[in-house]
Amino acid sequence: MNRRKFLQKVAGAGAFLALAPKVLAQGAKAFGEAALAPMKVLGIPLTPISQRAATENHVVRYISDTLPSRHTGASFSPIEHFQGLITPSDLHFERHHGGVPTVDPAEYRLLIHGMVKQPLMFDLEAIKRYPSFNQVMFIECGGNGQNGFSRTPDEAMTATRSKGLVSNSEWTGTSLKLLLEEAGLDERAKWLLVEGMDGAAYTRSIPLDKALDNCFLAYGQNGEALRPQQGYPVRLMVPGWEGSTHIKWVRRIEVSDTPYMTRDETSKYTDPNPDGTTSFFTWEMLAQSIITYPSGGQALQAEGFYEIRGVAWTGAGKVKAVEVSTDGGESWQEASLQEPVLSLSMVRFTLPWQWDGKETVLLSRAIDEKDYVQPSRAEVIKAWGYNHRYHYNGIQAWKVLEGGKVVNGDDVLS
Amino acid sequence: MNRRKFLQKVAGAGAFLALAPKVLAQGAKAFGEAALAPMKVLGIPLTPISQRAATENHVVRYISDTLPSRHTGASFSPIEHFQGLITPSDLHFERHHGGVPTVDPAEYRLLIHGMVKQPLMFDLEAIKRYPSFNQVMFIECGGNGQNGFSRTPDEAMTATRSKGLVSNSEWTGTSLKLLLEEAGLDERAKWLLVEGMDGAAYTRSIPLDKALDNCFLAYGQNGEALRPQQGYPVRLMVPGWEGSTHIKWVRRIEVSDTPYMTRDETSKYTDPNPDGTTSFFTWEMLAQSIITYPSGGQALQAEGFYEIRGVAWTGAGKVKAVEVSTDGGESWQEASLQEPVLSLSMVRFTLPWQWDGKETVLLSRAIDEKDYVQPSRAEVIKAWGYNHRYHYNGIQAWKVLEGGKVVNGDDVLS
Repeated sequence: MNRRKFLQKVAGAGAFLALAPKVLAQGAKAFGEAALAPMKVLGIPLTPISQRAATENHVVRYISDTLPSRHTGASFSPIEHFQGLITPSDLHFERHHGGVPTVDPAEYRLLIHGMVKQPLMFDLEAIKRYPSFNQVMFIECGGNGQNGFSRTPDEAMTATRSKGLVSNSEWTGTSLKLLLEEAGLDERAKWLLVEGMDGAAYTRSIPLDKALDNCFLAYGQNGEALRPQQGYPVRLMVPGWEGSTHIKWVRRIEVSDTPYMTRDETSKYTDPNPDGTTSFFTWEMLAQSIITYPSGGQALQAEGFYEIRGVAWTGAGKVKAVEVSTDGGESWQEASLQEPVLSLSMVRFTLPWQWDGKETVLLSRAIDEKDYVQPSRAEVIKAWGYNHRYHYNGIQAWKVLEGGKVVNGDDVLS
Repeated sequence: MNRRKFLQKVAGAGAFLALAPKVLAQGAKAFGEAALAPMKVLGIPLTPISQRAATENHVVRYISDTLPSRHTGASFSPIEHFQGLITPSDLHFERHHGGVPTVDPAEYRLLIHGMVKQPLMFDLEAIKRYPSFNQVMFIECGGNGQNGFSRTPDEAMTATRSKGLVSNSEWTGTSLKLLLEEAGLDERAKWLLVEGMDGAAYTRSIPLDKALDNCFLAYGQNGEALRPQQGYPVRLMVPGWEGSTHIKWVRRIEVSDTPYMTRDETSKYTDPNPDGTTSFFTWEMLAQSIITYPSGGQALQAEGFYEIRGVAWTGAGKVKAVEVSTDGGESWQEASLQEPVLSLSMVRFTLPWQWDGKETVLLSRAIDEKDYVQPSRAEVIKAWGYNHRYHYNGIQAWKVLEGGKVVNGDDVLS
């Protein structure tokens, strides 16, 4: 739905007056000393670079205080504070396996070797000279949402802690296919081993078909150079696949005819099945969505108009629709999607809602372009059980209590 | 052109080998101590918020050192360092008239009054409760490019100083039309006076038609709250019009039947004509483009493959095409535009180029959806003369010297 149609749908003269007069009453004392103070002094002069307002410094990533070490673990993006599709670069979620290496761009090298006609070593300047392109794209940790596997949902759950291991940025880079073609692929080539320059020598196997389809080497994020936490100076991008394949600080790509079964694709990032077997190489991220407003930890002021807001994404390509329920799943309405809806990018959805002041449960479910529907928590647990760690994409329920407080609405399952 | 077609066009096995072997030779000593050092230590631990790499700290805004005061003036975005469409929020160009006020969001109020049925006062929370939307949009200062009016082009010109008073962001906000409808417009209403909360009480007149068409009140930029330099907590957005109409820290919108002829729309932001008259209310920004790589101050390494890169934008809506000349204007080729091309957003263009090592001049010209073609510097000067300050949109020429140094290629005109 375009913006004009949307406004026609939700608005009309005086449609929101239930909101405004209340504010007007509060405003009787506005433009008092405090509101006028900034106009009476010279402000901050021009600066080479801007800082955020001090009153926004609470918007930071969440780091669990139970981590044994902050060198191996994750920090969560504060997704309920974000107001668009772009995740600010300094708040993109992190997942590291040996801390963030400090790489001197002048010393940076990328080696492509193995089953190639001619091994090549690129410096950063060479990589940047190749044809460039930009793609707005989400990255999601394979472990995002894993709180959903808990037997006892945490009432104090927030959107950050529920699904904050996902972020969305404009990435700039060059085609991996192009660089592989420069080296010349041996006809036996079927797999790549991609290795990072961190203390963990973090390493994953990538099928050559995927690499040639749409992988790229990124050196830019949201207009600037990658931040160290995102792989400065160069990281691999594997659109739609679990974040752990997007090797940061990439130093080496070895072409092979077989996967390498590295530590982080065998002991981790694998999925135990209820029948006792284990699935590995489960790369593509499933359709997900989450309501970020209202969401856990927030509070509504009073009954009246609210715009339900959230984000959705899928590794399958485009989000086709997002449906929202404001009555705990008894009925569903199709939300508006912010245009343009881009493949493999997050999409923002909204739905106008009149809250009657009574307790209710809000739900959202994403539907991807292949008509896959995001499942309920009960469906995920039924299929995979509790002994699981990755690829949880169950619906996050938020319960709005009388009085406006919002808490986790996920049920305790049998 | 989509990415696949583009790669087919420019690539093919070994198409760039002229680049790579040179790098390979340099790479013989790579993976020496310096390149491997980061792998031998634990890196930086998880952090609530990330900093840029220290080696990127040269990417900052430019501020002229001849300004009488840094409270009134502009800082320029380092556009040749940007790698995508999004301008990092902390590097968005600035233009202030009395410094940047420090506004307490709890004390913030917006008054809509004048020719309305019911004056309304909104606090920040109320504004954010209205239906929201996002738009990727450029803002350009009306004075951008004014160096082009100089009789003596500066050989050391850079892209930053030439056209860096433009930036592009994803903005989040709510429709101004909606808030005006809440107040209820008097039938005499034809103009708005919009006033900022800065020390200059910076104030402009906006026609009601424009306000109802597509103006909005923004509180978010690139996913985060506006930075103080961009109007925290709320600014007016006037898509496609000169930046000076996008009132920051907006506190008051007064509805009227006549424009107000404020200081900053009479003594400034007006255009003297060669016949001695003066044009005012020249709001819409004209089609522009600039090559950012290679551009002034940069240096090419050696003959061979380069991708010419740049950005284009127009207040008229969509950029339809960008043409590039690599021979000083004798011939022109159509550049590739990064998709999606969004109306009123910057667009990125690229053109593959083989440099033969000889001196030449690079040019780019944007063509908008109404078939308006960005003029040459000579055409602009012929039409408007040198005694002009705003809306310069002449082509920026870059001269590539033998040896690879890039300097201003603008001619001294008669």
